[in-house]
Amino acid sequence: MYAERIESLRAMMRSRGWDAVVLTGSDPHASEYPAPRWKQVEWLTGFTGEAGDVVVTLDHAGLWTDTRYFIAAVRQLAGTGVELHKMRVPEQVPIPQWLAGRFEDDDPVIAVDSLCLDCSTAAALDEAFGDAPHAIVGVPDLLDSLWKDRPAVPQTPVSVLDDGAAGISREAKILWIRQFLENKGCDGILLSALDEIAWMLNVRASDIDYNPYVISYLLVTQDRVCWFVLKEPMDDPTTDGTFDLLSSEGIELLPYSDTAVFLSQEFEGRLFLDPASMNLNLREAINDAGLEVLEERSPVVLRKAIKTPAEIDGMTRAHVEDGLAMEQFLYWLETSLGRGCRITERDAALKLGSLRASIDGYRGDSFETISAYGPGAALPHYVTPSSDAPVLERHGLYLCDSGGHYLFGTTDITRTVPLGPCTPLEREDYTLVLKGHIDLAKAVFPRGTAGCQLDVLARGPLWLSKRNFGHGTGHGVGFWLGVHEGPQDIRQNFNPQPLLPGMITSDEPGIYREGQHGVRHENLLLCTEAGVNDFGDWLCFRTLTLCHFDTSALEIRLLDESERRWLNDYNRWVYDTLAGRLPAEVAAWLRKKTAAV
Amino acid sequence: MYAERIESLRAMMRSRGWDAVVLTGSDPHASEYPAPRWKQVEWLTGFTGEAGDVVVTLDHAGLWTDTRYFIAAVRQLAGTGVELHKMRVPEQVPIPQWLAGRFEDDDPVIAVDSLCLDCSTAAALDEAFGDAPHAIVGVPDLLDSLWKDRPAVPQTPVSVLDDGAAGISREAKILWIRQFLENKGCDGILLSALDEIAWMLNVRASDIDYNPYVISYLLVTQDRVCWFVLKEPMDDPTTDGTFDLLSSEGIELLPYSDTAVFLSQEFEGRLFLDPASMNLNLREAINDAGLEVLEERSPVVLRKAIKTPAEIDGMTRAHVEDGLAMEQFLYWLETSLGRGCRITERDAALKLGSLRASIDGYRGDSFETISAYGPGAALPHYVTPSSDAPVLERHGLYLCDSGGHYLFGTTDITRTVPLGPCTPLEREDYTLVLKGHIDLAKAVFPRGTAGCQLDVLARGPLWLSKRNFGHGTGHGVGFWLGVHEGPQDIRQNFNPQPLLPGMITSDEPGIYREGQHGVRHENLLLCTEAGVNDFGDWLCFRTLTLCHFDTSALEIRLLDESERRWLNDYNRWVYDTLAGRLPAEVAAWLRKKTAAV
Repeated sequence: MYAERIESLRAMMRSRGWDAVVLTGSDPHASEYPAPRWKQVEWLTGFTGEAGDVVVTLDHAGLWTDTRYFIAAVRQLAGTGVELHKMRVPEQVPIPQWLAGRFEDDDPVIAVDSLCLDCSTAAALDEAFGDAPHAIVGVPDLLDSLWKDRPAVPQTPVSVLDDGAAGISREAKILWIRQFLENKGCDGILLSALDEIAWMLNVRASDIDYNPYVISYLLVTQDRVCWFVLKEPMDDPTTDGTFDLLSSEGIELLPYSDTAVFLSQEFEGRLFLDPASMNLNLREAINDAGLEVLEERSPVVLRKAIKTPAEIDGMTRAHVEDGLAMEQFLYWLETSLGRGCRITERDAALKLGSLRASIDGYRGDSFETISAYGPGAALPHYVTPSSDAPVLERHGLYLCDSGGHYLFGTTDITRTVPLGPCTPLEREDYTLVLKGHIDLAKAVFPRGTAGCQLDVLARGPLWLSKRNFGHGTGHGVGFWLGVHEGPQDIRQNFNPQPLLPGMITSDEPGIYREGQHGVRHENLLLCTEAGVNDFGDWLCFRTLTLCHFDTSALEIRLLDESERRWLNDYNRWVYDTLAGRLPAEVAAWLRKKTAAV
Repeated sequence: MYAERIESLRAMMRSRGWDAVVLTGSDPHASEYPAPRWKQVEWLTGFTGEAGDVVVTLDHAGLWTDTRYFIAAVRQLAGTGVELHKMRVPEQVPIPQWLAGRFEDDDPVIAVDSLCLDCSTAAALDEAFGDAPHAIVGVPDLLDSLWKDRPAVPQTPVSVLDDGAAGISREAKILWIRQFLENKGCDGILLSALDEIAWMLNVRASDIDYNPYVISYLLVTQDRVCWFVLKEPMDDPTTDGTFDLLSSEGIELLPYSDTAVFLSQEFEGRLFLDPASMNLNLREAINDAGLEVLEERSPVVLRKAIKTPAEIDGMTRAHVEDGLAMEQFLYWLETSLGRGCRITERDAALKLGSLRASIDGYRGDSFETISAYGPGAALPHYVTPSSDAPVLERHGLYLCDSGGHYLFGTTDITRTVPLGPCTPLEREDYTLVLKGHIDLAKAVFPRGTAGCQLDVLARGPLWLSKRNFGHGTGHGVGFWLGVHEGPQDIRQNFNPQPLLPGMITSDEPGIYREGQHGVRHENLLLCTEAGVNDFGDWLCFRTLTLCHFDTSALEIRLLDESERRWLNDYNRWVYDTLAGRLPAEVAAWLRKKTAAV
């Protein structure tokens, strides 16, 4: 099927004179996860990983993805003729460089889906050719004529997030951004990133799985706020109420498809935009309209990452509720297996989902649950099969990475738990990863420190015994927004963004042994102030996540005194916080699980 | 005196129509330490720190220096009217930005000593003004007419480093750089950094204190090697022999002052040069000659940092010899004070210097010894007074940071030792710094890791109790060249250069408490391979420095098991390596000092 689709694309390429087609795994808003309409890479190649771009030439088809998806890609691409190009490896050749090398001096015509290619990536593509002749042709919805049953742009009910929960009203956010525009000498800002728009307007929907966004653009000028959104009648009282409320506040609701035309006809002056989330198609339209533009990182990125006191309160509450579900899940898992029940990875994921769904304020999972036993857990981004999922056995390690969205916040937690006896290697890996997790969690650091300067705290204990993991240590987490957000992170790559009080970042080192087992321990950490002295202005982390770490799989000798103390303090805090709201038998079980070591 | 000199400069400025004069603390080769001829900042302001630039306007005189020299600068600038501008602090305003702000819209004329300003810095100065009108006037030897007894360009005996000691012959180095030029499409390279020239030609002199360089330029083309050097008759057999040998190998010796003229008249094609070490004066001459230029980092920088096996053998030997001197010094210090001798900081520095000087192959100190007791040690770059130096007392901490050049390598070591009872705070600081030192020294890390990714290993233990230090953790060290060299380092700043096998870097965390005490523990570490496994290609450090760490000032409870083991292993290794060559009473003393804790 996929080989045929690629051939039909090649037929189109021949008829139009294209030498290469580039399709990204993103959408018109540079979203991390696209709605089905924009899953072009999956439609063309069958690859379902969350990060993958495709290049098709007349004699080659390639998928570019990173370490997380190598194993899955090999399996999913088998028989399609699509070759895997590895990224985040030392010998990586990114798409721009690969194309420039492939078509050196050939003056190629490269077609891109200009709706799903952001300006930064488009610029990189162009730059790779240097002075070599080449043409890049932007074609919106390039696959439309081949993809007969292509899904429509999604449209789901739009609700309002209470100002109190957000901590800043729409009105205050608009005032703030107008002040920003004045400082920058701009007359308007066009927000294109969906999480930034949801944050600005305090609105939520579910147009994208796991991401509570509304497909839209937002223009803010000194005297207008124009929201370009799908406005077709929905017969949905929530949406109607939201739209009425926003209209009553003077926010203009305009059709999503009119964005470019509106800008060219009604906007005057200098427009601020962020090339990282602006697609090439709209950017070219803005260019054609002759508008003066300032391209920089959107100010919403940083402001959104620094949570308000109300958001921090909500996130704290979310972690209590989520922790209650997690503990009941782990209790169910251990006792059911103990009774001899047959449980598949899928059963476990469903059980956890149902526990979360019963929480008041639950608004869906924050990403697809990874429920993985043994070798499955060795794939950091394993997808549990929907049928014939592996059965959990009463030995070795089970890994579950999951999270929930709630009206009051978002969670993301990974626990790896022993289902019975573990091998010495499983126990060592389990302990070393926990050691790395703890060393990062208990860090104290001067204001100005960036995540990449702390990353080795989590990796160092693994490195000492020559173990490592191929993904980042930590990502920013939104408030009922994306479970992955910037600008901060904790990883090896140089990202100069300092960690600031109010930022929430994950701490999730791991060890993965192909065909054997995987370990990952993940909590969310809130960056917070730790006092000022002669040596500087100090910050530290406060752990938000509430769920005990199992001590039975530990090699205690590998923890030093301060790590052991951290672990005991953490487990006691989990028990003290949750026990009163757990069923008696779960609380009693948790007391045993959290006994000091 | 200094105020008068500044006024005489202002008189010159008025007569020439200059609004500002910029003088750097460097020389025509962007050397870290200039020869006396180029100590313009010291002549003008009295400031003797190793890093300081000056700006004089008609109504302001300012010195820009970093954290290391704040305290010294305040003292030395008192009464001169020169204001201190702090660098390496969050609120820093570098000279280019300061000037651009000061003369906004004034169309200023800024005069610079173009011999002592490198192209990179000149470009930064120009860029800071953006589109604002301004003129930068390059004046070689700008201070000449005011500085009546200005020293001449230094000229000291030039000797040859044996090819065997270097591990690569001149011939092989020249072949290598010719291959590099071919790959880069260049016809010649003009080396301007003095350590690079000394490395390329395997020559040494002592034109600059502590730096065994020859003031010169070196041009290598595919068929010529031209060394522009002071050639006046020296009546020095070493120099004569060196020049004869190089001439016999076909290396052309040409007058230093003819560099620019030669390039314009005899060089054809594309010239490679490194703007970081090329002065503005020569760069403008090259420009005026109409030569095509490729400006990038010199390839010698990286190649020189990766020591050859012969250099590693030499450095290893240097650390044995140096360690024997250090242990005899520490023995002398402890026993002399024990006998009630009066010892000043200066006496101690002289004693250590004389012990090093007796080593066969000694070629001078690698930098000015820091010999500091109590409050003096709280200044990371303390200069021991030449008269009335403080007397060492039988309590608290004494810090000595020193190093030697030998025919076979270079050392750089800091030991902080208790001279008697220490306060709890002194003991804690002493131990935490050692903890940081050890955690970095025992690191294992994947190939590709940069120093800034490891820096927190040394700082983390200090940060946990909210202590820190304001200098880098580690610098590269040359082989009988500069004791500070790039491209690698270990510090907070983002430097993408990975640590590579063969690189030698210092490990020197510290804690400084103004008016009280200072602690620094420094060894040199050789980066070396540690094996390959499924998780990657691993590197680690091998400590080169041989001198015990005193255990009597330790708070043992602050070390974890692996740190305690490292310390005991290290001290035993020091004893085992050195004892056989120490006088019996020193060996017996060292056995006690290195007893396991």
